[in-house]
Amino acid sequence: MERKTKRRTILSAGSSLVAAAPFGLAAPAIAQGVRRLKMVTDWPADVPGPQNSAVRLARSIGDATGGRLEVEVFAAGALVHAFETFDAVGAGVADMYHSYEGYFANKSPGFFFFATVPFGLTADEMFAWVRYGGGQELWDALSGQFNVKALLGGSTGCQMGGWFTREVASVDAFKGLRYRMAGPGAEVLRRLGATVVLLPGGEIASALKSGAIDASEWIGPWQDMLIGLHKTAQYYYYPGFHEPGAAWSFGINKSLWDSLTADDRRIIETTAAAEYIRSLAEFNANNAASLRELREDKAIKILKFDDNLLKELYRLSREVVAEAGAADEISRKIYASYQRFRAGAVPWTDIAERAFLNARALG
Amino acid sequence: MERKTKRRTILSAGSSLVAAAPFGLAAPAIAQGVRRLKMVTDWPADVPGPQNSAVRLARSIGDATGGRLEVEVFAAGALVHAFETFDAVGAGVADMYHSYEGYFANKSPGFFFFATVPFGLTADEMFAWVRYGGGQELWDALSGQFNVKALLGGSTGCQMGGWFTREVASVDAFKGLRYRMAGPGAEVLRRLGATVVLLPGGEIASALKSGAIDASEWIGPWQDMLIGLHKTAQYYYYPGFHEPGAAWSFGINKSLWDSLTADDRRIIETTAAAEYIRSLAEFNANNAASLRELREDKAIKILKFDDNLLKELYRLSREVVAEAGAADEISRKIYASYQRFRAGAVPWTDIAERAFLNARALG
Repeated sequence: MERKTKRRTILSAGSSLVAAAPFGLAAPAIAQGVRRLKMVTDWPADVPGPQNSAVRLARSIGDATGGRLEVEVFAAGALVHAFETFDAVGAGVADMYHSYEGYFANKSPGFFFFATVPFGLTADEMFAWVRYGGGQELWDALSGQFNVKALLGGSTGCQMGGWFTREVASVDAFKGLRYRMAGPGAEVLRRLGATVVLLPGGEIASALKSGAIDASEWIGPWQDMLIGLHKTAQYYYYPGFHEPGAAWSFGINKSLWDSLTADDRRIIETTAAAEYIRSLAEFNANNAASLRELREDKAIKILKFDDNLLKELYRLSREVVAEAGAADEISRKIYASYQRFRAGAVPWTDIAERAFLNARALG
Repeated sequence: MERKTKRRTILSAGSSLVAAAPFGLAAPAIAQGVRRLKMVTDWPADVPGPQNSAVRLARSIGDATGGRLEVEVFAAGALVHAFETFDAVGAGVADMYHSYEGYFANKSPGFFFFATVPFGLTADEMFAWVRYGGGQELWDALSGQFNVKALLGGSTGCQMGGWFTREVASVDAFKGLRYRMAGPGAEVLRRLGATVVLLPGGEIASALKSGAIDASEWIGPWQDMLIGLHKTAQYYYYPGFHEPGAAWSFGINKSLWDSLTADDRRIIETTAAAEYIRSLAEFNANNAASLRELREDKAIKILKFDDNLLKELYRLSREVVAEAGAADEISRKIYASYQRFRAGAVPWTDIAERAFLNARALG
């Protein structure tokens, strides 16, 4: 009954990619070996970026399986409620999700490490840990408990620290600050004395405008301008210490995954890897273009967080991340693997990417 | 005759991926719509890294086309001589190549911009330019002149400055230094007063040991240790100003590309994009592990190039890159597009990745 009710929801809500065929007509396609699969996302339908990424991934899967797997994409709320995507896929109500593992951390804080953590890995380092540093095996162990197989399926790259209605020159300025943020970064700010507020993206601009909140992070120039944040606050701070390489995830019902051929599993891994670099590139290109616009707006001040503030944020982040990594047995294993990889990756990035970027800034 | 001779070479040399079938037996496979394609590379067969990347890409293409395209990979020299890969693919002697566009810059300096240039784009920025910044269209125009369609097909990420048998504390230390380097970086060093030498990878270690050269760059910790450079020189300098995000390319005979279905072309684009992030991640993971070993070796000094030296390298790099970008009509268009994209990407990376990496180094 549950599934039948949901099915009616699909037909009324429509979809982003392929029109749903009436239920009775699916049989011929199944007879030819075509599997029609439903991907649910936690993204709104009408904002470019994450939902486009899910649709592009669905299309790649269709292409690369020669149409054997035909994936229909449903934006948040179209088939299941936002943030119920993970449970829906585990239960088989939907077949796949495109989302952000941090949303599922109420099940285990271990999920945070497959999204992003404060002062953690960059987008490039994250992919290296998951694929070559033992991350995927631990993710499989974590998600397998919920009948889900998950892969990296996108990245926003490094985010911004957020929009502020006043300057925050020091640690003291954070005391009592009403700041919209989610995830482990929110706990860091709480320990700094801020009052952390949770609001969906669509409500941030009006809350900043009305003075209900003093500050909010969202993503970066491209997405922040799309929801109008640059019209509500004057100070735009960097870097986004809390989300240095936010990854999106692509989850599949594990019974379905296990039923696929080894070829189809490899194909899906390839399409998800391609979507990781494509979405990252799309964010970097659009963020660069949007930042150019922001820099031309004389009313907006783009400022770096003070180093003493960053040091204190770093100290608190270490505490918060270590606590997340001590919450349960699987989180302890994930945290240990993540920290081991990070301990090797940071010195390498320091003499490679970081040293190069600092040299490039000398000119 | 040319092709028949080459075919015999294949059969005697063997291949990395799929055993070549005797010529007369290929007909049944063709009848079923299977196209057997030959990918030539400019990589030695026996070193992990680039050749593995080509083999992994070939396998992904086979998987994702359901075996319609079956790609056999030939290491340097197995089917055509090293650095003749581009011409071989344009002429149809081979179907595909996996290489580095800088090797083909004698045809047009415009090719350098699809490999890497001194003080240019990082690996992430490079993918963003090619896919979302107009780079691919200009690459198509350039390669199309030679009957080749090329895509980004791998990345080493940021490289190292190289191994030195003595300290190079200042600009003056470069005068007369016998330095092994290729590409635009070599011209920069020449203008700094160094004597630039060209040697294949396999000869660098003995040249350093014998004192025939004083310094050499290669790639980074992982690959450098594989060819034994850490046993021949004591000073390891960073950053690799000359190759901040060295990309590998995947080229296809353009007549073949044009004959593929739109689906197969999209599939190939997806597999090449996946290989870009996979190879980058493989380099970052292995470089981190190898650097850990190097740091434990007390005889080796890992040093940053002096800032005044970097400023001078930057100044000369701007000259050299601008000259490459003025050499012919297509290079002028490519250079203009690259510089336009870079002018937006640098400020974004400065407040995102660079600011984050510097904050992470505060802890």
